[in-house]
Amino acid sequence: MPSFYKHVHRKRDGRELILYGLHPLEVEVLPVAEEPSLPEGAGSISPSPHLRYHPLRGEWVVYAAHRQERTFLPPKEHCPLCPSQEGGFPTEIPFDRFRVAVFENRFPSLVPRPTPPPEGLPVPAERALGRCEVVVYTQAHVGSLATLTEEERLLLAWVWRDRYRALYALEGIRFVMPFENRGEAVGVTLHHPHGQIYAYPFVPPILERESQAFRERPVLLELFPHLEPYRVDEEEGFLAFVPPFARYPFEVWVAPLERHPGLWTFSEEEMAAFARLLGRVVARYDALFGEPFPYVMVFHAAPLGEERTFHFHVEFYPPKRAKDKLKFLAGTELGAGTFVVDALPEDSARRLREAL
Amino acid sequence: MPSFYKHVHRKRDGRELILYGLHPLEVEVLPVAEEPSLPEGAGSISPSPHLRYHPLRGEWVVYAAHRQERTFLPPKEHCPLCPSQEGGFPTEIPFDRFRVAVFENRFPSLVPRPTPPPEGLPVPAERALGRCEVVVYTQAHVGSLATLTEEERLLLAWVWRDRYRALYALEGIRFVMPFENRGEAVGVTLHHPHGQIYAYPFVPPILERESQAFRERPVLLELFPHLEPYRVDEEEGFLAFVPPFARYPFEVWVAPLERHPGLWTFSEEEMAAFARLLGRVVARYDALFGEPFPYVMVFHAAPLGEERTFHFHVEFYPPKRAKDKLKFLAGTELGAGTFVVDALPEDSARRLREAL
Repeated sequence: MPSFYKHVHRKRDGRELILYGLHPLEVEVLPVAEEPSLPEGAGSISPSPHLRYHPLRGEWVVYAAHRQERTFLPPKEHCPLCPSQEGGFPTEIPFDRFRVAVFENRFPSLVPRPTPPPEGLPVPAERALGRCEVVVYTQAHVGSLATLTEEERLLLAWVWRDRYRALYALEGIRFVMPFENRGEAVGVTLHHPHGQIYAYPFVPPILERESQAFRERPVLLELFPHLEPYRVDEEEGFLAFVPPFARYPFEVWVAPLERHPGLWTFSEEEMAAFARLLGRVVARYDALFGEPFPYVMVFHAAPLGEERTFHFHVEFYPPKRAKDKLKFLAGTELGAGTFVVDALPEDSARRLREAL
Repeated sequence: MPSFYKHVHRKRDGRELILYGLHPLEVEVLPVAEEPSLPEGAGSISPSPHLRYHPLRGEWVVYAAHRQERTFLPPKEHCPLCPSQEGGFPTEIPFDRFRVAVFENRFPSLVPRPTPPPEGLPVPAERALGRCEVVVYTQAHVGSLATLTEEERLLLAWVWRDRYRALYALEGIRFVMPFENRGEAVGVTLHHPHGQIYAYPFVPPILERESQAFRERPVLLELFPHLEPYRVDEEEGFLAFVPPFARYPFEVWVAPLERHPGLWTFSEEEMAAFARLLGRVVARYDALFGEPFPYVMVFHAAPLGEERTFHFHVEFYPPKRAKDKLKFLAGTELGAGTFVVDALPEDSARRLREAL
């Protein structure tokens, strides 16, 4: 029995849009009249992002110059992530209802058919192969991972799983990362509940370092017995905790207590427990200051080839250090790579435990 | 003939304050009556910062919990970096005039006499040995590296050099980094023109990577012949350029064309050229949008033991991608370590060349 249904739609500009539902009827919907959503020459049809190598840091930098023009906090009636209505504003989703929708980003940093990089650069350059997707959590314009129903959140977890499968199957992809940027404090340009997925043609530096650590030892399995003071919440088989070495005052990680390379090896019960715990972490965040809590949330699953040792986990990086104070990354963090944190992880964990 | 004079003063709370001047008379000044500037139990006398090891990223994180209470954008009449006046608000600098003042940070992340880290942590922990200094560029409350006189800027360069000498001489210090966070966009809490210096007891991860790259090849010397499209400005023996692999839209580096491990090996002429070029880069930044341009500026000099291959340079990271748009670090930057940039370095270089 499949846990979800999906319907693949090709947008008029060529981009793929996939509707996901828990029941067949939810994806058997007819598109409303679709306007071409991209002006001539813009968007994923003709971007030319490329990669350049940073020889001192040993990492790739992605250049996607067309992104300067991306949509910035449009008024609600022009939200591109809402369902479209016949005769109304043409959104990114030409259907009048949906459960979860995934589509190729109109302003992608990495693209399936990249053009060659400019010639004559003084550093190595590469095509920006990959894929950037937008994951719309719900058709409702207002909400969050915390306010989705249990059924909606579970569907979303299956969507992430399906996207992992689909994106790792693409030629040349070495790492897939679902993530969510939430709140204007982290630069979010659209408020409709959504996340993104990047499929990279290389293993990004942070994942390279984590992979190496996991190759050497089961870091999380070794930590778990000692995390009681850092515990935020739990569900059968899963723990949410402030890492004892948190780099942000309210950083939280969510991880399965047994090692899984990604959520693609979870049982059905584990999928449900994971989805519930993720929702409750966000609910705790929102309860902490009585308002939507900004964060960057990233999924760290095994890069290609690291499946035997990598331990899947989710990392939340909130930019707040108090209700009205942001933690800015500045000299020591950006220039040296050493984070200075003014809250102890065990104190943050206690506050998040008591928040709900 | 020394290029500067200095006067070491011990503040009543025990912190060191050093006045620098170009002439002996500038440092032969009497302190005004000094109030103890630290409330009972606060400040550098009793902080207990410590280090914890992040086992997945392989880096140290600094915990300095007392920093939550640090001064936040005080009104001008209470600027702690202005000179003190007899009977007036007691600032950090109990002198009624000064050229450049350096003092130990009241809210240090790293301290000369650290207490042991908490016991029983589930990850390795260490004392937060080191020193954090504030460098006040001028007694004038308003200004920048661009508006200092040539003489003032040269003195400041000599101050940095003297601080490198003094801080690398401390037991256990492995890396010294002068830096400046400028503008509220990067979280600056005090507007008076100033920078900071951190002396670390380890080589921070970004410097570890740069050191390794320089050990393998003279990265900057190899780049220089190819940087014409990336050139922003120059002075005899120094180049300011947007790196062809910039991670921020208006990132600029300043480097000597011959390899120096730090500015401590510059000739007197090179000190002057470096100071002039640094000032002109900031002037170009401020001209770009016709307003003070926020940035994080970091000095990358050789960590201890890397003097034979490391190539000193200054990196500016501006958070702006357009006059009214910030580049936020989010999912891909913070969670994967891969930067996406929406401006080409060669375009940014041209705009900065044309700005003045």
